[in-house]
Amino acid sequence: MSIASGRAATGRATIGLDVGGTKVAAVLVESTTGTVLDRERASSAGSATDLVATLTGLVGTLRARSAGLQMEVGAVGLGIAGLVDRDGVVRWSPNLPASVDHPVAAELASGVELPVVATNDATAATLAESRLGAGRGCDDVALVTLGTGIGAGFVVDGRLLRGAHGFAGEPGHMVVDPGGPEHLTGQRGPWEALASGNALGRMATEAGFESGSSAVAAMAGGDTTATDVFDRWCREVARGLANLVVVLDSRRIVLGGGLVEVGEPLRLGVASWLARLTPGADSRPAVEVVLAELGSDAGALGAGLLAGDQVELQVGP
Amino acid sequence: MSIASGRAATGRATIGLDVGGTKVAAVLVESTTGTVLDRERASSAGSATDLVATLTGLVGTLRARSAGLQMEVGAVGLGIAGLVDRDGVVRWSPNLPASVDHPVAAELASGVELPVVATNDATAATLAESRLGAGRGCDDVALVTLGTGIGAGFVVDGRLLRGAHGFAGEPGHMVVDPGGPEHLTGQRGPWEALASGNALGRMATEAGFESGSSAVAAMAGGDTTATDVFDRWCREVARGLANLVVVLDSRRIVLGGGLVEVGEPLRLGVASWLARLTPGADSRPAVEVVLAELGSDAGALGAGLLAGDQVELQVGP
Repeated sequence: MSIASGRAATGRATIGLDVGGTKVAAVLVESTTGTVLDRERASSAGSATDLVATLTGLVGTLRARSAGLQMEVGAVGLGIAGLVDRDGVVRWSPNLPASVDHPVAAELASGVELPVVATNDATAATLAESRLGAGRGCDDVALVTLGTGIGAGFVVDGRLLRGAHGFAGEPGHMVVDPGGPEHLTGQRGPWEALASGNALGRMATEAGFESGSSAVAAMAGGDTTATDVFDRWCREVARGLANLVVVLDSRRIVLGGGLVEVGEPLRLGVASWLARLTPGADSRPAVEVVLAELGSDAGALGAGLLAGDQVELQVGP
Repeated sequence: MSIASGRAATGRATIGLDVGGTKVAAVLVESTTGTVLDRERASSAGSATDLVATLTGLVGTLRARSAGLQMEVGAVGLGIAGLVDRDGVVRWSPNLPASVDHPVAAELASGVELPVVATNDATAATLAESRLGAGRGCDDVALVTLGTGIGAGFVVDGRLLRGAHGFAGEPGHMVVDPGGPEHLTGQRGPWEALASGNALGRMATEAGFESGSSAVAAMAGGDTTATDVFDRWCREVARGLANLVVVLDSRRIVLGGGLVEVGEPLRLGVASWLARLTPGADSRPAVEVVLAELGSDAGALGAGLLAGDQVELQVGP
């Protein structure tokens, strides 16, 4: 493959793409260290064909700029919010309905003439946090992202859990309260409806705040109503985490997503409730609760790392 | 080690022990094929010291008889109902409180002068069913045993899931309905309180039957009230299974435990509800629901297999 710049490429890189309900994050990842060398963003709106065009454009942009960094891009990784099968096709996605059953990965591969590997966005983020972020050095990690919804991914016994069809790690759809609110999936009381960032927003507005963010701001200022709302929401987060702990026996839980900006009050609130809600908690080591370290890069970076792993597998060391 | 019989041993075997809330099952397992050559039972009642004496006695009995089969016993496996850490110590066990924090495995090893490996009883049963029973040939299997409580074990990506401390696979303690009945753990509405054999018994007596068994018998005779009770209970079973499916993406669920005697109505009732309760079910392959094949031997056999694996690891091929 020819390089756009006249200079010869001296390093290997991948491009990671993180497709969420509203936007796409793209990063250029140096393959040896996982360093993010460059990044770009775009909207994920439109049809599946529009999405493929957007992704193709992002890859083209970062790839052109990579030549200036003397990097050669060997593969593309794609993280998508939804159930992504092992062939890279989105099979179910409440947040990206237009992409369902469309061969997004295959069309992107054809358009950019590079291998493309696809997975769930939170699974990709888990790979990044476990290798380079808050999960490093730990063989049993659960990443749980708290944002519009709840995403998750698991490292068990040192390996990324993919499941039979690549669909593992969707605990946001666990029903934890059949008397709870109805969700866009049609389920009543899934964890995501009770403990996502959106759920915090609902609880905050019910308590008279303008939004979840304003409740968080009020809490920082010492408002007791806001503190109470946030604590009740932390309890909902911990309730689902306790369910995960009894199933997976995770050593460390990494909290990610937009809510991480709250910082220590989030970590402490969730950890306190988790200790109270985990059955047999007095008889088992406390689960570590930590905040994600890679911020909004995590999903795209993880997709890039996954692409690098696949290339490694394909072409050998 | 000398053999009690005058004849030389020609085969290698292990002894597997399955310690439940009321009884201990012991089997002699031929190491090459996993064939159960002999079995014995005893009560698990009494103190931890009593339990060690019972286990030592069972091993002695089967080992003495193994000599007549020209088998040499190389190790002992112990499956215990509770959280068993990687050192073989029970850390939490609502059903076997006397054994908690007692070095049962170490004392047994000392008493019988054989290596002893210990794990959770349902984890042991999962190993047996996945290798020799209803889970064979499948890399992503969940075993769920429906009896006094709910036990479980998972094979993910072809490997037995143990977790950070060996405590993985306790979904009976997942809270699925915070408005549900209080359980002996102090939790309200864990899956076990709603979907175990005991829960079926409670639902049956509430509907006027003498017990769960009499409701099952009445259902077989066409009684519509009994059929309704059983269907509602199958729904509770499926509710928890749907939670497991979104977390683990299991390909096959093996139903085990005493309730398996109900047969096809159990399998079909649970499978039907699972298809209705799994989010995104229309977009993913249906999860196979099958009945366990190894009956009441599964736990002890799995413990014996695990002991064989460990010996294999210790002494090499």
